[in-house]
Amino acid sequence: MPERRFVSQLANNEQVEQVFLASNKQLRPNRQGNLFLQLDLSDRSGTIACRMWNAGESDYRGIENGDYVYVEGTAQLFQGAMQVIAQSVKRAEPGEVDESDFMTLQSAELEALRERLVATLKEIKSKPLAALVDAYLSDDMFMDKFCRAPAGIKNHHAYKGGLLDHVVSMMDLVKAVAPMYPQLDLEKLLVGVFLHDSGKVDELEYERDLAYTDEGQMIGHIVQAVCVLDRKARDAEQRSQVAIPPVLLMELKHLVISHHGQTHFGSPKVPMTLEAVTLATLDDLDAKLASFTGLIKECPNADSRWTQYFPNIDRKLWKGV
Amino acid sequence: MPERRFVSQLANNEQVEQVFLASNKQLRPNRQGNLFLQLDLSDRSGTIACRMWNAGESDYRGIENGDYVYVEGTAQLFQGAMQVIAQSVKRAEPGEVDESDFMTLQSAELEALRERLVATLKEIKSKPLAALVDAYLSDDMFMDKFCRAPAGIKNHHAYKGGLLDHVVSMMDLVKAVAPMYPQLDLEKLLVGVFLHDSGKVDELEYERDLAYTDEGQMIGHIVQAVCVLDRKARDAEQRSQVAIPPVLLMELKHLVISHHGQTHFGSPKVPMTLEAVTLATLDDLDAKLASFTGLIKECPNADSRWTQYFPNIDRKLWKGV
Amino acid sequence: MPERRFVSQLANNEQVEQVFLASNKQLRPNRQGNLFLQLDLSDRSGTIACRMWNAGESDYRGIENGDYVYVEGTAQLFQGAMQVIAQSVKRAEPGEVDESDFMTLQSAELEALRERLVATLKEIKSKPLAALVDAYLSDDMFMDKFCRAPAGIKNHHAYKGGLLDHVVSMMDLVKAVAPMYPQLDLEKLLVGVFLHDSGKVDELEYERDLAYTDEGQMIGHIVQAVCVLDRKARDAEQRSQVAIPPVLLMELKHLVISHHGQTHFGSPKVPMTLEAVTLATLDDLDAKLASFTGLIKECPNADSRWTQYFPNIDRKLWKGV
Amino acid sequence: MPERRFVSQLANNEQVEQVFLASNKQLRPNRQGNLFLQLDLSDRSGTIACRMWNAGESDYRGIENGDYVYVEGTAQLFQGAMQVIAQSVKRAEPGEVDESDFMTLQSAELEALRERLVATLKEIKSKPLAALVDAYLSDDMFMDKFCRAPAGIKNHHAYKGGLLDHVVSMMDLVKAVAPMYPQLDLEKLLVGVFLHDSGKVDELEYERDLAYTDEGQMIGHIVQAVCVLDRKARDAEQRSQVAIPPVLLMELKHLVISHHGQTHFGSPKVPMTLEAVTLATLDDLDAKLASFTGLIKECPNADSRWTQYFPNIDRKLWKGV
Amino acid sequence: MPERRFVSQLANNEQVEQVFLASNKQLRPNRQGNLFLQLDLSDRSGTIACRMWNAGESDYRGIENGDYVYVEGTAQLFQGAMQVIAQSVKRAEPGEVDESDFMTLQSAELEALRERLVATLKEIKSKPLAALVDAYLSDDMFMDKFCRAPAGIKNHHAYKGGLLDHVVSMMDLVKAVAPMYPQLDLEKLLVGVFLHDSGKVDELEYERDLAYTDEGQMIGHIVQAVCVLDRKARDAEQRSQVAIPPVLLMELKHLVISHHGQTHFGSPKVPMTLEAVTLATLDDLDAKLASFTGLIKECPNADSRWTQYFPNIDRKLWKGV
Amino acid sequence: MPERRFVSQLANNEQVEQVFLASNKQLRPNRQGNLFLQLDLSDRSGTIACRMWNAGESDYRGIENGDYVYVEGTAQLFQGAMQVIAQSVKRAEPGEVDESDFMTLQSAELEALRERLVATLKEIKSKPLAALVDAYLSDDMFMDKFCRAPAGIKNHHAYKGGLLDHVVSMMDLVKAVAPMYPQLDLEKLLVGVFLHDSGKVDELEYERDLAYTDEGQMIGHIVQAVCVLDRKARDAEQRSQVAIPPVLLMELKHLVISHHGQTHFGSPKVPMTLEAVTLATLDDLDAKLASFTGLIKECPNADSRWTQYFPNIDRKLWKGV
Repeated sequence: MPERRFVSQLANNEQVEQVFLASNKQLRPNRQGNLFLQLDLSDRSGTIACRMWNAGESDYRGIENGDYVYVEGTAQLFQGAMQVIAQSVKRAEPGEVDESDFMTLQSAELEALRERLVATLKEIKSKPLAALVDAYLSDDMFMDKFCRAPAGIKNHHAYKGGLLDHVVSMMDLVKAVAPMYPQLDLEKLLVGVFLHDSGKVDELEYERDLAYTDEGQMIGHIVQAVCVLDRKARDAEQRSQVAIPPVLLMELKHLVISHHGQTHFGSPKVPMTLEAVTLATLDDLDAKLASFTGLIKECPNADSRWTQYFPNIDRKLWKGV
Repeated sequence: MPERRFVSQLANNEQVEQVFLASNKQLRPNRQGNLFLQLDLSDRSGTIACRMWNAGESDYRGIENGDYVYVEGTAQLFQGAMQVIAQSVKRAEPGEVDESDFMTLQSAELEALRERLVATLKEIKSKPLAALVDAYLSDDMFMDKFCRAPAGIKNHHAYKGGLLDHVVSMMDLVKAVAPMYPQLDLEKLLVGVFLHDSGKVDELEYERDLAYTDEGQMIGHIVQAVCVLDRKARDAEQRSQVAIPPVLLMELKHLVISHHGQTHFGSPKVPMTLEAVTLATLDDLDAKLASFTGLIKECPNADSRWTQYFPNIDRKLWKGV
Repeated sequence: MPERRFVSQLANNEQVEQVFLASNKQLRPNRQGNLFLQLDLSDRSGTIACRMWNAGESDYRGIENGDYVYVEGTAQLFQGAMQVIAQSVKRAEPGEVDESDFMTLQSAELEALRERLVATLKEIKSKPLAALVDAYLSDDMFMDKFCRAPAGIKNHHAYKGGLLDHVVSMMDLVKAVAPMYPQLDLEKLLVGVFLHDSGKVDELEYERDLAYTDEGQMIGHIVQAVCVLDRKARDAEQRSQVAIPPVLLMELKHLVISHHGQTHFGSPKVPMTLEAVTLATLDDLDAKLASFTGLIKECPNADSRWTQYFPNIDRKLWKGV
Repeated sequence: MPERRFVSQLANNEQVEQVFLASNKQLRPNRQGNLFLQLDLSDRSGTIACRMWNAGESDYRGIENGDYVYVEGTAQLFQGAMQVIAQSVKRAEPGEVDESDFMTLQSAELEALRERLVATLKEIKSKPLAALVDAYLSDDMFMDKFCRAPAGIKNHHAYKGGLLDHVVSMMDLVKAVAPMYPQLDLEKLLVGVFLHDSGKVDELEYERDLAYTDEGQMIGHIVQAVCVLDRKARDAEQRSQVAIPPVLLMELKHLVISHHGQTHFGSPKVPMTLEAVTLATLDDLDAKLASFTGLIKECPNADSRWTQYFPNIDRKLWKGV
Repeated sequence: MPERRFVSQLANNEQVEQVFLASNKQLRPNRQGNLFLQLDLSDRSGTIACRMWNAGESDYRGIENGDYVYVEGTAQLFQGAMQVIAQSVKRAEPGEVDESDFMTLQSAELEALRERLVATLKEIKSKPLAALVDAYLSDDMFMDKFCRAPAGIKNHHAYKGGLLDHVVSMMDLVKAVAPMYPQLDLEKLLVGVFLHDSGKVDELEYERDLAYTDEGQMIGHIVQAVCVLDRKARDAEQRSQVAIPPVLLMELKHLVISHHGQTHFGSPKVPMTLEAVTLATLDDLDAKLASFTGLIKECPNADSRWTQYFPNIDRKLWKGV
Repeated sequence: MPERRFVSQLANNEQVEQVFLASNKQLRPNRQGNLFLQLDLSDRSGTIACRMWNAGESDYRGIENGDYVYVEGTAQLFQGAMQVIAQSVKRAEPGEVDESDFMTLQSAELEALRERLVATLKEIKSKPLAALVDAYLSDDMFMDKFCRAPAGIKNHHAYKGGLLDHVVSMMDLVKAVAPMYPQLDLEKLLVGVFLHDSGKVDELEYERDLAYTDEGQMIGHIVQAVCVLDRKARDAEQRSQVAIPPVLLMELKHLVISHHGQTHFGSPKVPMTLEAVTLATLDDLDAKLASFTGLIKECPNADSRWTQYFPNIDRKLWKGV
């Protein structure tokens, strides 16, 4: 295999003959009734639009969103944005794919993050919290999913390992912030950070294309996480012979369910403990910084000091001079 | 014991020497620094205000909200409302109390409601639903609590057995309504009705005074019910050897978590199935009719065609002519 | 005439030579400046998109939305949805049209619904209510319009006779529900159901295309209905020599004006009587079930368990497995 | 009769022996079980609190809100506010009352306002508008009520004749403003001003105490006014043999129903014509200026540059230096 | 130069060879990968869409939004709207442009408005207000910008001189309205009108294309105006040796910052003085009348009595019959 | 002087003869018309209610809120809370007061905080930021006020020096958090923290009683701070001969005006830069933690695991077990 040209490296009129991750496929007509295939091609460096003229139902059916596809075509600059005009788009053979080209976080990075997560959690001294955490850490299937899951399907941390990345980042945050407020219980906060988005393991589909699972849409990661926590608490007691006080379990559940901060963001209860307020606020900070940084970085508006207007945050962002 | 005079029967200047249920006790000063005890006295017919002049800390500490208290005093009409001026208020001896005087629903009524509940649920034909229901019905501790719990601490169905009353009433409703909409699955709806408020068993404290439990305030009956449902589903599979399809369990959880209809009423998800819309709307109807009927009935404003203004529903109610 | 092929029956590559109901016509350019005509074709089984290439202003002006049009062309599958590519689209001759092909409810069904409506209303025993109802029932022009009007221009019951369908469905609902709540006055409720949307008779234009009338947009069916009720009450008194008590008339007007439940849905007053709460809630239930059932049924997303996201209800709907 | 001392003139320790208008009567206990009567005493200059110690049910029942009462007692300064400590409070004899002492607007002022109203309306040149206006002006019962009605029960223009005062003030406003915007139809605006609050004639009870009528609460002055307008339009056509175009009547109804500006203020439709926007905005201006001026004038906080905080307008007002 | 054909005069198939103001340029592909240039062409009579087929990056880069461009092409009626199909679009030479063709307000009109503004402000008798106003009036750079600035970039008064036009119009309004409310201080109001939008001088970019400046987006005209006012007050004191009382300056700042009426419209404080309420309400009236009148006038929907639906005002507007 | 007994040390029936800070004085009647004086007494350890029976206008007028008062009386336990029943309450002589008894932060603590503030700011390396900061630091009057001002009049940091305390606490926060997000500019953030609440220096009155100044209520600390910043920027340029780039000044102003996070909290613009999002979120965190910690600590509900319900945060807080 020749060396890969990443999406972010493609130059005008450059030939393209390599594998990408496909998404958002659409078969659309032009006015003459001729169909063309439109889709997005990604690798870990970014995403680029692709069109194949004179395509048909069989081209459309031949690939699925989430497939690795082998594309032959040409990169073309169009109105300031690069796109690929394809001659062919086919499902790639397994041997053609180097998964590391498609992961924002490389295996080694993921591994390092996982180690930092585990190391931080292993330092917890409270017996019941340690027992509980251990019930999660020793569940290999859970941990594997936890370390591969994204934290969302768009906006912030929407990539494999994004959940782990977000959780480790927030652990750093609470370790920096909690010492300034002696009234906060750092260990509860760390467990809260570990668990707050743990329902995303089941809320999201991330083996191929990022999407919500049925249960993710109908129940949501907040309630999913609490159900798992309920089970893990009983497992932990059996495994460790350490009693987990009901009040402690209640406080941990509260950390999970209140972390969206307000009922209209889907939290059935607002934060009612100091740790819950802290978790919800720092989660908001980490998510907003990751998301806004991404919006600024990916802004196609190269000439302007401003990004476009984003309806979901009801504002433009200032990119600076 | 002489025959009881119920709260609703007390007449002006009538002597009072009997047992009541105490709540809302307060020790308050008058302007001379003399303290008086103020509390509410209830039986199944209603509630009346009571004051004991020249009381002290020991009087206040001598009784708890939720206690049965023996009161000696006089009923007095004051500004159109009856109140009791007490000479003494003491904790009652067990032998002095006839519990049936304090229950909105009598044991026989509760028993009848329970039988109707069970009969309805026993008719369910779907194997997984029947297995699941059976796991609840055969849990005596759950069922005992379910049949004693209120449906709230104020407003609608705020009395022991109120949850059962509300659930049976809603079962009648869905049995009447569902046949008109063939697209609805009656059995799912019935199980949804049974479970939607089942978390109130743990959300509320009702052995003595009605109140929220700590967990009720921090987690809420919606999430509490889903955690129990999660466990019961596994129990049911083990007990019955009938598989409960994950999709079915998901739909039942959705019925529970969406039944407040909107996120700002504490539902983490809005109704997304036909049954969930139906359950949320009929729950709203039954609760509003019970609550508004109560507000109209208990309105002290005897001269007026209108009740007072109620801030929580942002309106007055028309009592008619 | 050959037997009709209904919209829902059309197969890929099938020749089409028959009459449809036209709506949403648009003349649009392609990039070469060539125009094409785009419109929707309906019959009682559903709606299908249609395009005629190389059309001109005269084609566009030759038909009106709401016209029956004779179409020659071919059905073609395109991206999972059927469409018609037309060679010609012309206004149909009256003799070519069988109106029953275009009515969701057939004449006999409409007649049966009307009979059920009248029968229910004729059973009202209250003299003033009966007199009032009679003033409507004996107004042939009103009743003709009432039985042809839709209940909306999109969403629920948006077809000729939809208002009648909705009203009879709600009468069944209140007859099933009211007996469970003895505090409700069934006859007032039935008259409220009959009248609540009666302003739609004038709010909507439904002789041809469904649309709002000018008065419908500026005044709205709620106020329109009250003005008519005001007149009918006086007619009824004169016709029947039965006095309609002002308080009763007031309660009926209140049923009408409060039936949207909240001021920001256009009700100038919120429900303040038990009947008004019941009517508003059951109206919401019947409308939501009709609308959501339609959205699920017409969902073009055949592969998915979910409908698309609908912004006006801010959710996707679960279609099930 | 000695010369009246108006409420605004009463000085500390001054003897009081004269007639007032009573409102807000309450019988309240002190901590010893002794009752006292509390009420407000008004005349056209303002309102003052009054207490009579050691009162009983018979004192409370002996007067009604809205009665003229003869009071004997003493004015006393208490915490910066004057109050009356009464020895007796009795219903006044008709001969003791000079109604002009209790009217914000004197008969002559009311008469002058009425003349200005009529003169302005008589100048309308449009035949249909003139015919319609004439149907109101020649209805003596309507006009009598119109000229006595208040415009509210608290806040702005809450006194007999307040509606007339508000309407004449707004007529002056639109006559001043309309010439600057040639796109506005002044005559439609004037009729809109005349009619916009005409439902208050029936919404409010003002023969004695100011209050909402039953119909005012259940239907509201907006819908009440449209029903009357509907009738008057038909009367006008019969009386004058001038046709009132349906579109004109529709626009006038729209002026009435949209004049609260937003649905959550009870308007079933928002303003959709230039005249409706103008009417709603100027009504808001006139009402706010009248209300805020009153709040500043009656502010008991003599030492401060600020009024107290008013929750209904969510602000304090600046009184200036 | 031949006589100009204004945008509003162009007829079907008419040859076009003259200068326009360009905006909203876009380079777009058709389905064959051929690019076309799309832009809007304006003069003082209105705006028309323009397309040039087979354009390229150099055509797109050759002009800027806000440029005067020389266009050769043909006017064509398309679906009821006129458009220009261009053969060439080039930046115009200065000698080809007659600026008066592009100004809604002609120089003489602007001059007259400026004179009216100055005359009104010169009549102010209060010494501190006069001194303050003089500090603005004698600042030539400020006044030049003030008289050229628009009042917005879309909706109301979005043209050069629009700010001046809006301010003079509002001065007329307050001069007509204030005499009816003796409690208002006309001179404070006039200065408030003069200053309320003065921050738009810096908030908007209007030398070429209308746009927000960076500071306009990040700080906003309200805060910008207060900063300038702060400086001008000190200048005024130095120039005139008249002290400007801090309370007066505070009230003027309050007039500026509260003139949007509500915090969610960007006012950091709601109006708390009578003048502030008046200014905010009349500003709303003048802006709405200008904006709605424009929406009705420019409505392309010639056949309908209604404009299209406008999401930002959440309504259609009635154009009348 | 005998050693002070702090508010938090007073025991039941203890004699009290010392100085307190008075606030919330009220003269109130009992039912017999006898007046009593009610006020709050504070020192740095907390606040206690006080009543003096049989007081008069002269007692009430003899002291002002914010005065140091010498109180003779007795501490009494009443319903779980301590109060003082006073025999006399008189303005204290200067010699009787030891100011350090009344300061939450002692002079040495304040001095230390000030040194930390200055040290942090002195480390700023950016020339323009350093110049700007220096213009503030070298303004002794500003710095004196800055170091004495509270951060609010109730809730969080409502004590002299509270602003300084809050700012230093937030500087620690941003120094801990910023290194985790390399995209943040720490120096801009530090200056933003320094300035964000600097308007409170003028918004609040804190020489005696805490209150809002007139300008604080009418303009608000956000706009006040920007006006000062505007002046300081020019001072800084003159003092230092370092140009402050307009874009930098704009970003700093934006940090100030957007720090309430949302328009309905009084920010005229929402945060549009990464630093602004960070500042607003961490300000929210620090304020909530200070406020909630205080609410929990001062909760008089000693028996309960919950605080009372607080309407302004719409929740109870969990105090734990």
